[in-house]
Amino acid sequence: MALVVQKYGGSSVADADKIKNVARQAVAAREEGNHVVVVVSAMGKTTNNLITLANQVTDSPDERELDVLLSTGELISSTLLAMALRTLGVEAISLSGAQAGIRTDSVYSRARILGVDPNRIKKELEKDRVVIVAGFQGITEEMDITTLGRGGSDTTAVALAVSLGADRCEIYTDVEGVYTADPRLVPEARKIEDIGYDEMLELASSGAKVMHSRAVELGEVYKMPILVASSFTDEPGTLIHGGASVEIANKVRGIAHDLNVAKVTVVGVPDKPGVASAIFEPLAKANISVDTIVQNASINKITDLTFTVAKSDSAKAMKVIEPVVKSIGARECVSDTKLAKVSVIGAGMQTAPGYAARMFSALYEAGINIELITTSEIRITCIIDEAKTEDALRTLHKAFELEKGL
Amino acid sequence: MALVVQKYGGSSVADADKIKNVARQAVAAREEGNHVVVVVSAMGKTTNNLITLANQVTDSPDERELDVLLSTGELISSTLLAMALRTLGVEAISLSGAQAGIRTDSVYSRARILGVDPNRIKKELEKDRVVIVAGFQGITEEMDITTLGRGGSDTTAVALAVSLGADRCEIYTDVEGVYTADPRLVPEARKIEDIGYDEMLELASSGAKVMHSRAVELGEVYKMPILVASSFTDEPGTLIHGGASVEIANKVRGIAHDLNVAKVTVVGVPDKPGVASAIFEPLAKANISVDTIVQNASINKITDLTFTVAKSDSAKAMKVIEPVVKSIGARECVSDTKLAKVSVIGAGMQTAPGYAARMFSALYEAGINIELITTSEIRITCIIDEAKTEDALRTLHKAFELEKGL
Repeated sequence: MALVVQKYGGSSVADADKIKNVARQAVAAREEGNHVVVVVSAMGKTTNNLITLANQVTDSPDERELDVLLSTGELISSTLLAMALRTLGVEAISLSGAQAGIRTDSVYSRARILGVDPNRIKKELEKDRVVIVAGFQGITEEMDITTLGRGGSDTTAVALAVSLGADRCEIYTDVEGVYTADPRLVPEARKIEDIGYDEMLELASSGAKVMHSRAVELGEVYKMPILVASSFTDEPGTLIHGGASVEIANKVRGIAHDLNVAKVTVVGVPDKPGVASAIFEPLAKANISVDTIVQNASINKITDLTFTVAKSDSAKAMKVIEPVVKSIGARECVSDTKLAKVSVIGAGMQTAPGYAARMFSALYEAGINIELITTSEIRITCIIDEAKTEDALRTLHKAFELEKGL
Repeated sequence: MALVVQKYGGSSVADADKIKNVARQAVAAREEGNHVVVVVSAMGKTTNNLITLANQVTDSPDERELDVLLSTGELISSTLLAMALRTLGVEAISLSGAQAGIRTDSVYSRARILGVDPNRIKKELEKDRVVIVAGFQGITEEMDITTLGRGGSDTTAVALAVSLGADRCEIYTDVEGVYTADPRLVPEARKIEDIGYDEMLELASSGAKVMHSRAVELGEVYKMPILVASSFTDEPGTLIHGGASVEIANKVRGIAHDLNVAKVTVVGVPDKPGVASAIFEPLAKANISVDTIVQNASINKITDLTFTVAKSDSAKAMKVIEPVVKSIGARECVSDTKLAKVSVIGAGMQTAPGYAARMFSALYEAGINIELITTSEIRITCIIDEAKTEDALRTLHKAFELEKGL
């Protein structure tokens, strides 16, 4: 008997009717002859409401307590789904992250899964039950509740699929799968039938919101096939797996964008050892994550140093950098918060030349100025004016003929 | 260092401000030199809201799942209280029933506490922390969540006080203590300073809502002093303990009433063996709890049999009884749902005569007809017309001079 782990996000269990719908889908998977484990997120806005409640009590909620508080959201949705399944005549049981054996470290609010003890789930599956697991949460060695942070429920699902030896992990969400670009901005965007882990990772970390890179990484390490599909339609979705790259070599798979980009430039930096660390150490200490770093060729031992951060961090970054500018003898420090990142991604790019050139010339012909460029083996990213994002996406989608499929 | 267990009910933690208020009270108890363990109920209407949610998903929620669902209410209030305490600069930690070591049987929705493993709480107290425990819940041997049913959080508090060897258990609620009668109906009603377990048990089971008899029983068995007081005032409250009865012998302590009473009379019952069991077995099977049973002296081997049930059960009881009336050859079956129960309670009554006579004559002089009478060693209960409840309470309060105090 095959085993499928399904995960349903907050919008898929937002109210009683949607929960009943999810129950019917789990039953359908069961009637196809599978054992079924279902991981759920909290209903719709539950998590935000709980955070609001905490903020009414205190400005700085204790992280351990906040984790217990937030973990109740998934407990609620998991019990409701179990009830809905029983009403359909199917044996079902809900388990908390702790009961499901999700063991984590004790870094509250962003705990990492250390291991999974699948015994309880296996026992329940042997009783021919559908097992519902509260996502996003686990338990420390000291029996304290933790939450897994961003992408937590997806990570729960993939980790359970791996530890149970599932045949695949299905992530149900409010979009129909992974697209060649955001279909709200690029009408010609096409759903991708299957994609490699690497490519999906680059898409996710370049701004594609459909799935968090953390869960994809876990899938990649253990070669767990992950299906991303909509819980609201019967469309087939996108399969993320290890075998895709071979077939689709020499192809750009998708274009991601990210509007959460700000640029900081330190102007007139003396080009001498220790300057970079003088700038980036205080940023790291202030817990500001720096994305791209570019240093211009130095002229007369004077150079400009530019880096990007999340928009929400840009004011803080400027505040941290200003005293450094003086101490290292640089001229000044300027920031630009009206930027976006567009990335072209495809495993084929690492073996075939010409993709970068085609990207730059397409943007040039569309009159879009490139502020910064960074690349990985399978990704080329340009930072551009935020106002040109939609233009850039459509231009690149066309330039790489993504509307045509494989 | 003394140890105090405090319990705060749903109205005492109904919103953020009330939770902050509870935090200040716990801090005050700590500053008096006590270790403090706080047991909390769910905030205000949380439990009802969760039940509504379950009913939106299914007409018959599975009891195991419902218990997990409802247990989240106390998790939420316990974490918020821990946050509020930390904001006041006091080390605090919330524990679920499971983490607090509350072990129960697996009778969902009304589980009984089998034992308490106090190690985790002790460890936290040793770190000089205030420990907040989610009330109303426990865990089975199989690590499944249970809820304790009516009076659950009070029972959690007393059970923890007993197992931790606390100096006393304090139950904070929205009333100032135990009164000689309901002060909303009897303006002269006086707060009782201290009362014996037995008397409190009779008061509670005769309709006094201030505390559930289950927690009082537990307190009695282990001789744990229980203080009942308001969380909204500094008034001293009522102490329930074992030593009270001696001092106050020969005294009526209080008058309880219960409006949830219906009477069913089976008329013209042949007085022969097996008739009573023919009537009461089907009621027990239908899960209808029968309170008082009275059988008139039989005339010509024909008698009437009267019993009382909760108002909400009366229609169901009639339905169950009607076929029985035919099968045993009785004449008919009638019900009256407009009744109330008034009870006079005092440990002194068992050693001194005349209390029943004084009660009956007081009611007679006030023109109140007595439908049924039942007694225990320390209680006399009359069932009367519901409309006369207030009259009866005032009359009896005066007749037994309860306004005068000890």
